[in-house]
Amino acid sequence: MGIFTGMELNSLDDLFLLEIEDLYDAEKRLTKALPQMAEAAHDQQLKIAFQSHLKETEKQVERLETIFNKLGKKPRRETCDAMKGLISEGEDILKADGDAAVKDAAMIGAAQRVEHYEIAAYGTARTLAQRLNQSEVARLLQETLDEERAADKKLTGIAEGSVNVQAATR
Amino acid sequence: MGIFTGMELNSLDDLFLLEIEDLYDAEKRLTKALPQMAEAAHDQQLKIAFQSHLKETEKQVERLETIFNKLGKKPRRETCDAMKGLISEGEDILKADGDAAVKDAAMIGAAQRVEHYEIAAYGTARTLAQRLNQSEVARLLQETLDEERAADKKLTGIAEGSVNVQAATR
Repeated sequence: MGIFTGMELNSLDDLFLLEIEDLYDAEKRLTKALPQMAEAAHDQQLKIAFQSHLKETEKQVERLETIFNKLGKKPRRETCDAMKGLISEGEDILKADGDAAVKDAAMIGAAQRVEHYEIAAYGTARTLAQRLNQSEVARLLQETLDEERAADKKLTGIAEGSVNVQAATR
Repeated sequence: MGIFTGMELNSLDDLFLLEIEDLYDAEKRLTKALPQMAEAAHDQQLKIAFQSHLKETEKQVERLETIFNKLGKKPRRETCDAMKGLISEGEDILKADGDAAVKDAAMIGAAQRVEHYEIAAYGTARTLAQRLNQSEVARLLQETLDEERAADKKLTGIAEGSVNVQAATR
């Protein structure tokens, strides 16, 4: 997150807001990274999965804006160092030389790390919202969490169903 | 990972080795970070969880060394940018001012992001090992994967059972 530097964590409300600001930065970064991943993907199923996850991510950004609104706060991004690192991994793969199917397999690995970052972060945020009796906010966060889990599962299916099978022949 | 810069991804073996080198760096970094987390934790259960996960992480490092050995390779670290970012988040929390229970809750959030990074990375590595017919290596990776999942679950239990309850009163 890099979000805690100089921050005061005096209450669960403080922490919850920081988690949402961190996620907002993370999702915004992803909306820039996913089109590159989609363009570079060789496997058609993988290309479509990245494209459809981009649309989903755009909705998740809006969902976070709704949450800021419900909290009476202005949407604010707090640099998410972990997501910066995760995305730079993806970019390194795009630049790498090699076989298309192997690069697809590597991209899936990077994308699943991103999904898992979000699964952990949304899980924490959802649990905090519940604890703060923000049930509608918790519901919105759960919705995104379910989408991230489904995206992760879809990537596993593509890896095991086609990409890794192809890559293993190289 | 930062591992793909200038790398050639010509085969699934190339990718698999890079994944293992990335995990080796990630786990080594964690063995340095966990003692600081354990020292800073205020909740006794959380402190013990970090201490016992340190011991587990040391075994996971050895397990990766066994895998390098089985592959006929020398253990080699490839800088894992994502883990660097994840750990710097944890360090920011340690430096932050605020309430002890709220900081504990923040630390759990950071630690669960780390666990999920590892869940994704070990999941990918295990699946690649299976595809490469390295069944003993796949078994070792699955063992660590199960431990990471259990560690994540334990942290959820501590958050919901005590830390968040306390933090919500601040």
